Amino acid sequence: MRARLLAAIAAFVLPAPVLASGVIDNVNGIALDATGKAVRFGAMLIDDEGKVEKLLPGRYQEPPRKKKLKKGETWPKGPDFKLDGGGRTLIPGLIDAHGHVMGLGLSFITLDLSGTRSLSEAQAKIRAYAAANPARKWIIGTGWNQEAWGLGRFPTAAELDAAVSDVPVWLERVDGHAGWANSLAMRAANVTAATKSPAGGRMEMAGGKPSGIFIDKAMDLIQKAAPPPAPKDRDIALEKAQQALLANGVTGIADMGTSIEDWQAFRRAADRGALRVRIISYALGLDNMVMIAGPEPTPWLYDDHLRMGGLKLVLDGALGSRGAWLKADYADAPGQRGLELIPSTQMRNMMSRAAMDNFQIALHAIGDAANSEALDAITELVQTYKGDRRWRIEHAQIVDPADLPRFGQNGIVASMQPAHEASDWRMAAARLGEARLKGAYAWKAMLDNRVPLAFGSDVPVETPNPFIGMATAMSREDGEGQPAGGWMPQQRISFEAALDGYTRQAAYAGFAEKKFGSLIPGQRADFVIIDRDISVARPSDIRSTQVLETWIGGKRVYMKGVKP
Amino acid sequence: MRARLLAAIAAFVLPAPVLASGVIDNVNGIALDATGKAVRFGAMLIDDEGKVEKLLPGRYQEPPRKKKLKKGETWPKGPDFKLDGGGRTLIPGLIDAHGHVMGLGLSFITLDLSGTRSLSEAQAKIRAYAAANPARKWIIGTGWNQEAWGLGRFPTAAELDAAVSDVPVWLERVDGHAGWANSLAMRAANVTAATKSPAGGRMEMAGGKPSGIFIDKAMDLIQKAAPPPAPKDRDIALEKAQQALLANGVTGIADMGTSIEDWQAFRRAADRGALRVRIISYALGLDNMVMIAGPEPTPWLYDDHLRMGGLKLVLDGALGSRGAWLKADYADAPGQRGLELIPSTQMRNMMSRAAMDNFQIALHAIGDAANSEALDAITELVQTYKGDRRWRIEHAQIVDPADLPRFGQNGIVASMQPAHEASDWRMAAARLGEARLKGAYAWKAMLDNRVPLAFGSDVPVETPNPFIGMATAMSREDGEGQPAGGWMPQQRISFEAALDGYTRQAAYAGFAEKKFGSLIPGQRADFVIIDRDISVARPSDIRSTQVLETWIGGKRVYMKGVKP
Repeated sequence: MRARLLAAIAAFVLPAPVLASGVIDNVNGIALDATGKAVRFGAMLIDDEGKVEKLLPGRYQEPPRKKKLKKGETWPKGPDFKLDGGGRTLIPGLIDAHGHVMGLGLSFITLDLSGTRSLSEAQAKIRAYAAANPARKWIIGTGWNQEAWGLGRFPTAAELDAAVSDVPVWLERVDGHAGWANSLAMRAANVTAATKSPAGGRMEMAGGKPSGIFIDKAMDLIQKAAPPPAPKDRDIALEKAQQALLANGVTGIADMGTSIEDWQAFRRAADRGALRVRIISYALGLDNMVMIAGPEPTPWLYDDHLRMGGLKLVLDGALGSRGAWLKADYADAPGQRGLELIPSTQMRNMMSRAAMDNFQIALHAIGDAANSEALDAITELVQTYKGDRRWRIEHAQIVDPADLPRFGQNGIVASMQPAHEASDWRMAAARLGEARLKGAYAWKAMLDNRVPLAFGSDVPVETPNPFIGMATAMSREDGEGQPAGGWMPQQRISFEAALDGYTRQAAYAGFAEKKFGSLIPGQRADFVIIDRDISVARPSDIRSTQVLETWIGGKRVYMKGVKP
Repeated sequence: MRARLLAAIAAFVLPAPVLASGVIDNVNGIALDATGKAVRFGAMLIDDEGKVEKLLPGRYQEPPRKKKLKKGETWPKGPDFKLDGGGRTLIPGLIDAHGHVMGLGLSFITLDLSGTRSLSEAQAKIRAYAAANPARKWIIGTGWNQEAWGLGRFPTAAELDAAVSDVPVWLERVDGHAGWANSLAMRAANVTAATKSPAGGRMEMAGGKPSGIFIDKAMDLIQKAAPPPAPKDRDIALEKAQQALLANGVTGIADMGTSIEDWQAFRRAADRGALRVRIISYALGLDNMVMIAGPEPTPWLYDDHLRMGGLKLVLDGALGSRGAWLKADYADAPGQRGLELIPSTQMRNMMSRAAMDNFQIALHAIGDAANSEALDAITELVQTYKGDRRWRIEHAQIVDPADLPRFGQNGIVASMQPAHEASDWRMAAARLGEARLKGAYAWKAMLDNRVPLAFGSDVPVETPNPFIGMATAMSREDGEGQPAGGWMPQQRISFEAALDGYTRQAAYAGFAEKKFGSLIPGQRADFVIIDRDISVARPSDIRSTQVLETWIGGKRVYMKGVKP
């Protein structure tokens, strides 16, 4: 009798622990099934572990009560909390398949030039920042873009000196693939006319002297002299990055190029229970991979909040700084074909080193030559490293149309950033000429080739706002609606495919599709409540979507208008 | 009514979770009170979290049952497990206040020369190891001691070549303060007659050429060419280290000089639930400190299994290799006074850098000059860095008697290793001469000065067996009972003080005394069941104590005769 009684009690009273079960009721819910098809629901049950228990087609109904309790029975436990969604639209938590978490965070606590529309506006901002921060031994910043300034050329050290000349200044271009130094920074780094550009980099020259612009690996020449962020600053940066991501409905992100310092900041946050966004980490090079993860990918840590699963290798630079590695000369810079950052054999050795220990490989490839090289290398390595590898090509931006079908082979994932298209379309046409644009930002072609297509922001290069990304994917118009009807509109994709790219496919690209991404029962209850039904909205309306609430693991982690 | 019923049920049914509560009954229990006095008990109650709930003076009694249950009541839950200790002696889990966890572990998977009694025995062992491991590109090993060989001088590269000449060989001395290279290792490292000894190190010369012996910082000359252990090897090493510690009743250890690679191995083990021994970590230098812990000491992680709380700085070398920094010349090497490894100002800067972020400081000081320097530096820094800092001096081996009272000031902790005395007493007399021995291994003098005295092994330099340490602390006789009656017997200490040094004081030295160390209720239930009552045994019997069971956090993690 006693045993039976206890069992009966246990069945109702336990499990009662940390996480409460709950109901999100009265929503216009959109989940994705195993094939990426949108599934509607009206209410969601969340279990005690913060996982999706069930999706209900209509409203939630309290279970009917029996008239009488038997001896020892208690009323069945209802949900611990109930949220009435007021009919709002609920979608799976958005996953950014390619971002730089610490880069985003540091952009909030260093000089941020993104949004400046002219060199003189940037100079004024730099001058004001230096005046407001007299204690800084170096001025570090990011976000400039000579294309957005309409400058038609790179800025110079002299132009930076004109803003600040009494402190070293080092400013990364918006894409992270070039840096701009003032004279004092070059002096501090011992950079002179005699300094040689390293392989994979280019120090721009003007009148026989360094101009102040350093491309890709040449950035190290200055960077090594600049002070790295202090751990305390990294912690602040990570918190700010999380706030920005959550406010945009981003519940998970693939961190593309995690250093050991970044990883330790993720750990510190997680150790004190402050890591809310899920981070799928890809190590910045082999040394970081081995240092962070050791002999194999880490398990999912902290209730599926953090995992180091792969290696990021950067094959070429970016298009804006003409570092993207092309098969033929730049249309606007004859004789230049960009930068091959890792020699062919060395790259295959690095890929092998990671693949033999079951790390996933993510290859940054922007130019058509880089994409060919990535495809070649993967095609060779799949002979040795079999199984479900999900080789990733990051950006896959300018692809030789002849190479497009190769993405459909060997399970290669295309990890692309729709917002780049909106930022780049004019510049890309100038850099490449019309003839090479056929395989540029070719989302629809990827889908037609049945390539898993994961979407990301490349934050802080672009905004972390995935709704802008979705709208761009659907319209190929930029924020000003240009060009009307879309640039190369044959590459527009459907709403469903755009949402899929930012959720289920982004999770799949990070080996996380069993953990989160689609709101399939059993997954973590990561979701976003938004102010409009994006499944029926026009792209221009989707752009302005407001995130009302963000939930991760069955807990609300962001509410619009409420300070964290 | 329903609420009241639920509350009543909850009180009895919850908490039910992961860790079971239990009773260790029928033991000859020894705990330590807050002053270090031994307290007897007969049974221990362990709560659901694996903490000591209560110590009972006699046997455990089942709580009496009421005749009738009220409505909704159930019988009080008894303990989930009960162990009859059969009257065996139970003591707090032993804490090693100074060891090298990965060094211990790696000694099991590399060539181990400890225990060799002659150069020719060592040569034979090296030869056999190389033959058995033909795939190794380098032969790496440790544990040699020319003193134990009765060699009266260091061995040479030629003598190592005689054992193995076709593969580079690099063997650390037992104390880690000298290394022995063969000719091929020196060639691989580009070490020639023209190579300069770095500051803080000495490359021994013979006939104008490097002899093959590298002292302290000169070890880097060879080490940088030798391959570091792979992460997989570190994981194996850590597991073997834990097994060795647990088999010796060691439930916690201060890891004195943790590198980022070591830390990551600790993390990997903890992440998969395989870190059983509690590790109080002190970073190997500032770079590792910042890399591992960031802006401040980490919190206790993994249920009090791991914490990075401090910085280890090495002020001098060791006595055996004449690296210990003395105030006057070595008695057996006129003109030599050992090595000051960190210049005075630099050391204070490093200490400040750590102390300002609230890291604890542990200063390795063996020679009397090094101990004076450590005391001077601490005396200066306490002006700025106030509060409960627990400045540690590691080894405190040869102390100028005039400096002994200074240990009693400013809350300085003496972290000493009794086994060193047994290993060193003949050599120490030779190195120092009689006049300088008064403050050597002066445990009793420390206690008389009310210095917190924490004991450790310096494993792998000495055995991890704390019972040998305790026996030595009580007798000052070595394993052969030499010298009979003890070397400088006035420095012998009581059993209670010896146990205190290996438990409560070792925890205190690591800011862990609230977590574990004494079996005071509320602490983690870390304890050891042994085969004899060491409180009444003679030191020579304590030496042979067998550990029957080791428990950590209320869970049995070692049983004699049972393979892990």
